Amino acid sequence: MRIAELSRQADVPVPTIKYYLREGLLPPGELRSANQAQYGEEHVRRLKLVRALIEVGRLPIAAIRRVLEHMDEPEPNLHNVLGHALMGLDQRGPADDEQLAAALKEIESLAERRGWRLSPDGPTKLAAAEVIAALRQLGVTEPLENIDDYADTAERVAQVDMKLVRKRLEDPAGLVYGVVIGTVVGDQLLAALRRLAQEDASARMFGITEVTEPC
Amino acid sequence: MRIAELSRQADVPVPTIKYYLREGLLPPGELRSANQAQYGEEHVRRLKLVRALIEVGRLPIAAIRRVLEHMDEPEPNLHNVLGHALMGLDQRGPADDEQLAAALKEIESLAERRGWRLSPDGPTKLAAAEVIAALRQLGVTEPLENIDDYADTAERVAQVDMKLVRKRLEDPAGLVYGVVIGTVVGDQLLAALRRLAQEDASARMFGITEVTEPC
Repeated sequence: MRIAELSRQADVPVPTIKYYLREGLLPPGELRSANQAQYGEEHVRRLKLVRALIEVGRLPIAAIRRVLEHMDEPEPNLHNVLGHALMGLDQRGPADDEQLAAALKEIESLAERRGWRLSPDGPTKLAAAEVIAALRQLGVTEPLENIDDYADTAERVAQVDMKLVRKRLEDPAGLVYGVVIGTVVGDQLLAALRRLAQEDASARMFGITEVTEPC
Repeated sequence: MRIAELSRQADVPVPTIKYYLREGLLPPGELRSANQAQYGEEHVRRLKLVRALIEVGRLPIAAIRRVLEHMDEPEPNLHNVLGHALMGLDQRGPADDEQLAAALKEIESLAERRGWRLSPDGPTKLAAAEVIAALRQLGVTEPLENIDDYADTAERVAQVDMKLVRKRLEDPAGLVYGVVIGTVVGDQLLAALRRLAQEDASARMFGITEVTEPC
């Protein structure tokens, strides 16, 4: 298909597609003549993925480029793919090296307590450590005092995530696409549900027993 | 304090502070002369918050502006503050109005199943509906088939979040700051823990029993 049809099928404007092509977020089409390229189904799928990562997942372009590079390896390591989705900040966070090293130790000791089997040099541990260091730096340490509760819920979510993996095992491309979308966009779903549950929890805590909504 | 001291205390470069001032993310200092302003502790705290929302929370500037506007109201509604942190996309997501209405119904019926007491017109329901519509549009529906499992974990996290609220009830400014940081930065902590737990779950699923890491 030509770029106009690709735009229609993926519901992404042509100038945006050209921008993604320039930024290397979409592989070039197959050239049929000097100024006409042909695109396939894989371009439609990739465009939808990129758009979801930008608009719903809020990943910066640099992070998406890294995610896609790792996805496009002959045997993509999904944990690296997903870890890079957490990392892609060009500016470093507020933590200095000493704080970061201390936070990495916290993650190592959490992993040991939970019996988590982690690869030694994946990007996620560093991403987690950066968040921990940021919370300490900001003086908001309550989440860290309750990190095992958070880890419990993370384990439960990961069990649910494995259902998706099992369902898509026969289709490697669909598996990678599904896991990346399910995790990055799923993070936003979890964040929204957390806020709704907070609203309910605080309504209960402050004794609001009636809701005026006609639902 | 003058801007140079503010920069040192908050660990944010002066040009960045000037950018935040121009963007309305930081209230102006008190003018002492035509070109010298004085800043206080509240500027240090606000700067740290803005930086965390940008660098760790990855919120777009427009979303941060909305969050701060709602924080600065005389009696801030924290659920609105946090809901706006989820929303701030200037481009709309891939869902059309019909898909969005259907997704809103899914959220309403989830809330009814869970007995959640929600305000009728908060921004979070809409944010959640946009994520649901995006997942359907992208053909990754497994998280939606298991949304009650996600809601269970969201409730558990919200319970932990209430510990922070209880601890900070005596200090309204510290409460708002803590809840915003704990929620927005906490989302990133949960996302990172989810990836670590996924790594462990898939190691177990695919029978990887040994990790070479010397930890």
